[in-house]
Amino acid sequence: MRRLRIGLLGCGTVGSGLVNLVAQERDRIRARYGVELELGRILVRDRTKPRPGIDRQLLTTSALDVLDGDCDLVVEAVGGVHAAGSYVRRAIARRRHVVTANKALLAATGAELFAAARRQGVTIGFEASVCGGVPVIGALRRGLAGDTIVGIRGILNGTSNYVLCRMDEGMSLGDAVKLAQANGFAEADPTLDISGQDAAQKLRILAELAFAEPIRKVTVIGLDKGGARPARTHGASPPVLDDRPGRPLGAAGTAAPRMRQIAEARRVPGGIELTVEPRMLAPDDPLAQIMDEQNGVIIRGRAVGDIRLSGRGAGSLPTAAALLSDILDLT
Amino acid sequence: MRRLRIGLLGCGTVGSGLVNLVAQERDRIRARYGVELELGRILVRDRTKPRPGIDRQLLTTSALDVLDGDCDLVVEAVGGVHAAGSYVRRAIARRRHVVTANKALLAATGAELFAAARRQGVTIGFEASVCGGVPVIGALRRGLAGDTIVGIRGILNGTSNYVLCRMDEGMSLGDAVKLAQANGFAEADPTLDISGQDAAQKLRILAELAFAEPIRKVTVIGLDKGGARPARTHGASPPVLDDRPGRPLGAAGTAAPRMRQIAEARRVPGGIELTVEPRMLAPDDPLAQIMDEQNGVIIRGRAVGDIRLSGRGAGSLPTAAALLSDILDLT
Repeated sequence: MRRLRIGLLGCGTVGSGLVNLVAQERDRIRARYGVELELGRILVRDRTKPRPGIDRQLLTTSALDVLDGDCDLVVEAVGGVHAAGSYVRRAIARRRHVVTANKALLAATGAELFAAARRQGVTIGFEASVCGGVPVIGALRRGLAGDTIVGIRGILNGTSNYVLCRMDEGMSLGDAVKLAQANGFAEADPTLDISGQDAAQKLRILAELAFAEPIRKVTVIGLDKGGARPARTHGASPPVLDDRPGRPLGAAGTAAPRMRQIAEARRVPGGIELTVEPRMLAPDDPLAQIMDEQNGVIIRGRAVGDIRLSGRGAGSLPTAAALLSDILDLT
Repeated sequence: MRRLRIGLLGCGTVGSGLVNLVAQERDRIRARYGVELELGRILVRDRTKPRPGIDRQLLTTSALDVLDGDCDLVVEAVGGVHAAGSYVRRAIARRRHVVTANKALLAATGAELFAAARRQGVTIGFEASVCGGVPVIGALRRGLAGDTIVGIRGILNGTSNYVLCRMDEGMSLGDAVKLAQANGFAEADPTLDISGQDAAQKLRILAELAFAEPIRKVTVIGLDKGGARPARTHGASPPVLDDRPGRPLGAAGTAAPRMRQIAEARRVPGGIELTVEPRMLAPDDPLAQIMDEQNGVIIRGRAVGDIRLSGRGAGSLPTAAALLSDILDLT
């Protein structure tokens, strides 16, 4: 039996999801993997806030209690770039493995952090940073490692997809965002989602995994920038990775095209081009069938052809499940 | 630079695909992973058969030349259970990692082989054994390890799916099988595909990865056993893992249901029940949208919800890509 003590930075949506999931899965993981999961200290902003099911003794407002305390790995769930980055650097310096869902941090400073981790002989797990519970990072790192990746096309932001599905039904952008917030899919400030910046951060992480070439050009067009009107007559760029199965769905000819926020990485002379923009998709495009807050990715390999992955891209428990899978992968 | 010398058993569709893929990907893999791939001896039945692009000096008709020779790992691509099993046992006994696409072998003797590999401190990679290039084994072993799997539902046999797609268009079972053979999707003897046995072997591999519980009941109904007639009026069992996104596709109300060979693993009292049978699916069921020789799997996790993976489930290069990904995962 191997003990694995988790130091946790942040106990918001993602962090509290992990605490709950560890409680729920502990017995199965002990029996299945011979690993005894333990929660160490948990960094919070407010120790007095009620947190049902969480041992108050573990809570601390000092990151050093987590980083320098007794733990085998650190889960970074504070989000943002500045504080999170300094925590992760310190964790690596103290030779702790790091598991994170923080796409902004990795998109901004991933190369530096991965190099530091390599020097210190520790790992950074980041499956949770893109598409929540959908194991797309693992697919690129391992499952498709034997193939040359030709392109990636996906829906990487669940909030935008939820909003666009409502707009396809005739709702305005503003009303759709409000409904997404009311249903808990959108942050209080949905700017990163709607502008395409969140999808662009995730696309950069996927592209750096998939391609050895440098990123030459990044184009990000928000949902509020012309493309995403309910009007269905003017098409955006056609999908480059078009993997329609050769014949239309039962009644595809009569179904309406659908607007989706498409993130695409493709090879261009001298490197890789990243694009995030709203596009009209034919109804039989696999990405047109990604509904509501779901995410979907199509990875095109030279040998394997198109591999499609989809599922819930965000949320407390799906993201926590990806963190926990990364934790078990350290063992 | 780490040298990795591959001993190859079998040089048919899958084995020759691997030889070609190694030639194609060698430079990328050297640059990306610091691994120098080398082909060692290759077991063939007939050394005189022309094999374009393959160094005749490597060919041997003696399995011992491969198993006892100079190699770091053995790729088993002979298929079948008896000879393949004795080769794999000897490779493990000689402390060589094994990579295989052989679902029949794993379904029959997987537990014994994995136990032997554990004792010897070597690994058996088997991503290629289920769904070809679609990384479903990796998803279950790693990406979803943090979650409790509730059920699995999928299309695991590309030949059957191709045949059913043609039957949905009005073709007879016999004519559809002949067309599949003419197009290279079906074996000369398609019995294992049409009977559901091939899908059942793959389902067993997935279920043993996903669940700790014993398999209590296995039901396998072939396409020729009543269910798979073009008639669309009598429905088979409804899908248990129904992950329709809540609203129908554009014109789903008018589209016809579709017959698919569905492999399903689900929890029942005391263990797991496996079923392979033809079923009528609603046209907006994600598995109804798996066309022709593609494979698709829906893994339902308690925390992550439904994760869908799909792509080419067979073929020389997709299967070879999965073998090569497993080889790189050993490093």
